[in-house]
Amino acid sequence: MQSVAYRSLLGLGEELALLNGVQALLGWDQEVLLPSKGVPYRGRQMAWLVGWAHERFTRPEVGDWLAEAEEEQATVGAGDAVAAANLREWRHRYDRETCLPKRLVEDFALARVEAKAAWAEARRRSDFALFAPHFHRLVDLSREKAAAWGATGGAAYDVLLDLYERGATAARVGEVLEDLRLRLVPLVEEATTRERFDLGRLAGHYPVEKQAAFNREVAESIGFDFEAGRIDTAVHPFCSGMAPEDTRLTTRYDEANFLSSLFGVLHEAGHGLYEQGLPKEWHGQPTGDSVSLGVHESQSRLWENHVGRSLPFWVRWLPRAAEHFPNLAGLAPEDLYAAVNRAELSHIRVEADEVTYDLHIALRFELEQAIIDGSLDLNDLPGEWNRRFESYFGLPVKNDAEGCLQDIHWSMGMFGYFPTYSLGNLNAAHLVAAALSEPAVSAAFDVADYAPLLAWMRERIHRRGSVLLPEALVAEAAGSPASAEPLVAHLRRRYLGEG
Amino acid sequence: MQSVAYRSLLGLGEELALLNGVQALLGWDQEVLLPSKGVPYRGRQMAWLVGWAHERFTRPEVGDWLAEAEEEQATVGAGDAVAAANLREWRHRYDRETCLPKRLVEDFALARVEAKAAWAEARRRSDFALFAPHFHRLVDLSREKAAAWGATGGAAYDVLLDLYERGATAARVGEVLEDLRLRLVPLVEEATTRERFDLGRLAGHYPVEKQAAFNREVAESIGFDFEAGRIDTAVHPFCSGMAPEDTRLTTRYDEANFLSSLFGVLHEAGHGLYEQGLPKEWHGQPTGDSVSLGVHESQSRLWENHVGRSLPFWVRWLPRAAEHFPNLAGLAPEDLYAAVNRAELSHIRVEADEVTYDLHIALRFELEQAIIDGSLDLNDLPGEWNRRFESYFGLPVKNDAEGCLQDIHWSMGMFGYFPTYSLGNLNAAHLVAAALSEPAVSAAFDVADYAPLLAWMRERIHRRGSVLLPEALVAEAAGSPASAEPLVAHLRRRYLGEG
Repeated sequence: MQSVAYRSLLGLGEELALLNGVQALLGWDQEVLLPSKGVPYRGRQMAWLVGWAHERFTRPEVGDWLAEAEEEQATVGAGDAVAAANLREWRHRYDRETCLPKRLVEDFALARVEAKAAWAEARRRSDFALFAPHFHRLVDLSREKAAAWGATGGAAYDVLLDLYERGATAARVGEVLEDLRLRLVPLVEEATTRERFDLGRLAGHYPVEKQAAFNREVAESIGFDFEAGRIDTAVHPFCSGMAPEDTRLTTRYDEANFLSSLFGVLHEAGHGLYEQGLPKEWHGQPTGDSVSLGVHESQSRLWENHVGRSLPFWVRWLPRAAEHFPNLAGLAPEDLYAAVNRAELSHIRVEADEVTYDLHIALRFELEQAIIDGSLDLNDLPGEWNRRFESYFGLPVKNDAEGCLQDIHWSMGMFGYFPTYSLGNLNAAHLVAAALSEPAVSAAFDVADYAPLLAWMRERIHRRGSVLLPEALVAEAAGSPASAEPLVAHLRRRYLGEG
Repeated sequence: MQSVAYRSLLGLGEELALLNGVQALLGWDQEVLLPSKGVPYRGRQMAWLVGWAHERFTRPEVGDWLAEAEEEQATVGAGDAVAAANLREWRHRYDRETCLPKRLVEDFALARVEAKAAWAEARRRSDFALFAPHFHRLVDLSREKAAAWGATGGAAYDVLLDLYERGATAARVGEVLEDLRLRLVPLVEEATTRERFDLGRLAGHYPVEKQAAFNREVAESIGFDFEAGRIDTAVHPFCSGMAPEDTRLTTRYDEANFLSSLFGVLHEAGHGLYEQGLPKEWHGQPTGDSVSLGVHESQSRLWENHVGRSLPFWVRWLPRAAEHFPNLAGLAPEDLYAAVNRAELSHIRVEADEVTYDLHIALRFELEQAIIDGSLDLNDLPGEWNRRFESYFGLPVKNDAEGCLQDIHWSMGMFGYFPTYSLGNLNAAHLVAAALSEPAVSAAFDVADYAPLLAWMRERIHRRGSVLLPEALVAEAAGSPASAEPLVAHLRRRYLGEG
């Protein structure tokens, strides 16, 4: 693909990627550093950048380049899979973006900045009312966006979901998640009634600096490159791959419990390893991007759960942990293994164990469909959350902070994001099973050497960027399409001691 | 001023200010957080933003707006001092920017990002050779810029100096600084041979968190608004007013000496108070900006020196400091006063006392004129620095880190910046003398209540933005033009106990 049209698209892609990285820094900074009074101006900056990029991308000449390059691709470029994938994604984005008025993308960017700040305050005070007007606004703007894409009512959710998981639909994802939920219910019942490790045995003071030092060692050892990344502190742990060589993780610290920040780092470092492993030679092209959130989440859950909650991991790391935290000295790796694999119904998604985690997602998936299709009165979100939560989990919700305000996503206008967490769990179990079926990967895994596992993911997932669509990528990497089977088998082994 | 032309300029100004703030965040982030491998891409982002803003500002229609608005101002708008000042500055910038090719501003932005990173590494290793190619490049680009403005040889320095101190020339500044230097030489000789406070009496361990907590209390008490600002850690302390409500200070910590970070914070908080006090209603207009570095520096030196090194300050703050740092318990305020006013010839500018400080500036002022006019062989910078330093200070320079690599400025291509520090010292002494001539300000100052002093600066300096040019602003605020007199009188009082 050598045409001027295609090369113009590549140039535009690089330019927009530069600006995307700037937006990512502005967003990261808001969550980690920005002083409170700086929020409104940050909103204006963000709206300007988003609006400018929108205008740049939706020019008619970009449409001409696309048409010309598609023509070229269909004829002389037929063998170029990367160009074909780039054109597939550019076309998809162009057809979507050109339907949106600039005013809408600017309003959405501004509303997100303001809503995120209001959410943080509302969560701190545990008061949904402070967040409600921002929530309404984001829902309205999201519906308006979907309507501009010709989707209203139930169909609106599908087009939003596609932003995070290309090619997915609520019906298809719903089927997969319902299948998973039905298999989980008896497993949860059995696992949560077993005797649990007494967390009192981990009681102690874990100074933040010591936790940070330990987490850094662990992240470094699994392959996270600190010359091209960092770890900072934020209310809501996240990972931002804001430039080809600048991937930032955040975590949060609890001085009574070192596991909270550690698992935050393992999870986010999983995202970070994916970002750091993307094909740099395609940076600025759609193929150079991560393919979907369901695949992204497979990488984070892999390191958090399959690695971090495994026995070999603790055989390797407990002695080192005990050097940082002397109160762990009397414990065995099996104790830590038991401590990090306690099945328990609880309120907070990000702290949930692997067995109950997907029930948290099922709740959000149902609710956000009702939010978007209008069947839920938005003012009743806290009540509806609490009712459904109690019916699924058997626990009353004491306040909004442990209820519908616990997650940041809706404050960023991200409706359709949550189900990708469960897809990530399925994908993780599926990919890990395939990787461990190779004796060299498996043998190393058993002695907590994760270099072969990372190499496997690098080659089959990270370096593939977005050449394939997510389902096809996972199927190709693992040799078969993802299903609930490997995850359920993994959970039965880990939580019920089967097989 | 109601014309479409003038309002178009206001709109453009707001847009460019948004982007300026984005650039400021990118620059701040590079110094405080950016991982090393992220530097090249950051350079590309910065170059893009700078290039875009340049193109936007230099469009011919902006020239048309300017001409039309100037016409309007000369007739119906004659009484509007703010509009007149805006047009004065816009015209100056437009005539300058339109002379520069976009390629040059982009290259300069990229070169700065790369040079700043190379400088940090060169300084760490104390090896000028690592920095030399970047230094050459920035000098070349600076000369090229000056040449585009019609200035070569000796005249080139003037047009660069004007970037930091509007209206200043090397000849005029040179006269002022030489007058100051001649008065300082005997004062330095006398002050540095007096008996000095034994710093061993402050020996102890000062944990970073305690220093940070104490510094924050002090900064808050003098009026720095932490809802619209922060303090972070950086190799080179600086202040960035990156948005109307987002002013960030940095400092650096030495656990053996709490005074280093404290005076860093007092100095940068002085800059920050100026930024926080600028007229928000004019944000995005030239009049809403700080007027010059010589005035900016007057505000930082005021809080660092006139306040922070005064006896009343230590009467007020020593007891609190001793709560954070118990080893100070046996000391009297007079001891701290003596400790922070030790006159001593030393290597590092930012740690120099008030008496010897301007000698450091004189050295840099001479050198950077020779750098720009070509009379200094750039490869010989370290040697020339060391020779001149030894002749002025009587001390040999052991390595580049304590020599020509100690300051960040040249690595950011800022030639013409240094003399504004001495102008700042003159302005600070002049403004403080005028403020303290008011009994209410003076009485409060004597009991370490600085609210009246800040109010005086707010009204006469901060809120005036850039309506007047710097010299006129200081003269109007103090009732007479600045001169060396008040600074020398202040130093004689403080260091020789006169008057």
